[in-house]
Amino acid sequence: MNKPTPSAPPSRGPTEHEVRAQIVDAATEYFSRYGYEKTTVSDLAKEIGFSKAYIYKFFDSKQAIGEVICANRLATIIETVNRAVSEAGSATDKFRRIFKVLTASGSQLFFQDRKLYDIAAVAAGTPWPSVKGYEQQIRQQVSDIVLLGRETGEFERKTPLDETVNAIFLVMKPYFNPLLLQHNLDSAEEATIQLTGLVLRSLAP
Amino acid sequence: MNKPTPSAPPSRGPTEHEVRAQIVDAATEYFSRYGYEKTTVSDLAKEIGFSKAYIYKFFDSKQAIGEVICANRLATIIETVNRAVSEAGSATDKFRRIFKVLTASGSQLFFQDRKLYDIAAVAAGTPWPSVKGYEQQIRQQVSDIVLLGRETGEFERKTPLDETVNAIFLVMKPYFNPLLLQHNLDSAEEATIQLTGLVLRSLAP
Repeated sequence: MNKPTPSAPPSRGPTEHEVRAQIVDAATEYFSRYGYEKTTVSDLAKEIGFSKAYIYKFFDSKQAIGEVICANRLATIIETVNRAVSEAGSATDKFRRIFKVLTASGSQLFFQDRKLYDIAAVAAGTPWPSVKGYEQQIRQQVSDIVLLGRETGEFERKTPLDETVNAIFLVMKPYFNPLLLQHNLDSAEEATIQLTGLVLRSLAP
Repeated sequence: MNKPTPSAPPSRGPTEHEVRAQIVDAATEYFSRYGYEKTTVSDLAKEIGFSKAYIYKFFDSKQAIGEVICANRLATIIETVNRAVSEAGSATDKFRRIFKVLTASGSQLFFQDRKLYDIAAVAAGTPWPSVKGYEQQIRQQVSDIVLLGRETGEFERKTPLDETVNAIFLVMKPYFNPLLLQHNLDSAEEATIQLTGLVLRSLAP
């Protein structure tokens, strides 16, 4: 992947958006081969055929690139989750779907490529803003499902909504947080089924 | 702690049990200062003032010593848990206690001494037989509590016992497994309260 090394962004040519995407694509590939922690911006620049200074025009740091990769992956998971939830009819079925799909896509995206797990681990350990946003979106989905189930009469209404939502979020967390999921991978699918049953029993009116 | 270096176990003098306890005590102290991973049996022998060969008469490997330290710590936790559970009257109260005490003693024992966490992490990662036994005892306690609650009419009886017990075990696991607990420590106490509420709602008749 050796491209000419421009010393400054060309006045005509690829837009800023395109260059950023090109750097992110190359970095995704490079990190997945050599790992995030061990790679420097210099390594990356050499690989893409850009100067280090040129990369720094678009990204403040290696972490800034990692953040975009992480945010892209999490956005893909959230899209998959949202689609699965919207396809289900009842609140009960929506809950089954969100937990199942979240665990499955988390396992797949984070672990199909062990080297990229580096990024997921750093991101979840800090946590990065993209991870906070991701968790916030999961919490919102759970809240929407509980509210729907309370409206349709599928779920009980006595427990304060916040308490119900937060407890369910905590049950699910070991299966969508990569730092926790790494220790749960073997049994994640089976565990998700059993935990879904428990949560649904806790929601019974 | 410099003791004379016997080249073989003395025919009169400390019993095998006493020597083993002495090695375990010294190793606990040494590991807690320098970490388990970084310490060798030679380091340990030098510190106690025993020959390496003498230590190997009592323990096959460093791991064998670590196993005893780990088993001792886990036995202490199980004792505390059993006492707390036996002091509670109803099945509901027993469940509240087991979850609370397990999280609290786990956090305290594993993390009051960061260096000893090394052992807990290795033990839980493999896992060692002592950890399997520990998990088995927790599972048994949960099973006893659920059975009691089914007898007294506190808990529902429709769900197969195994399914109920296993799901509750999975909810609790991130708070008693040190590999998972390390990522949950800050919020463990609050999380335990919320998850206890959820589990008890799931058990309602």
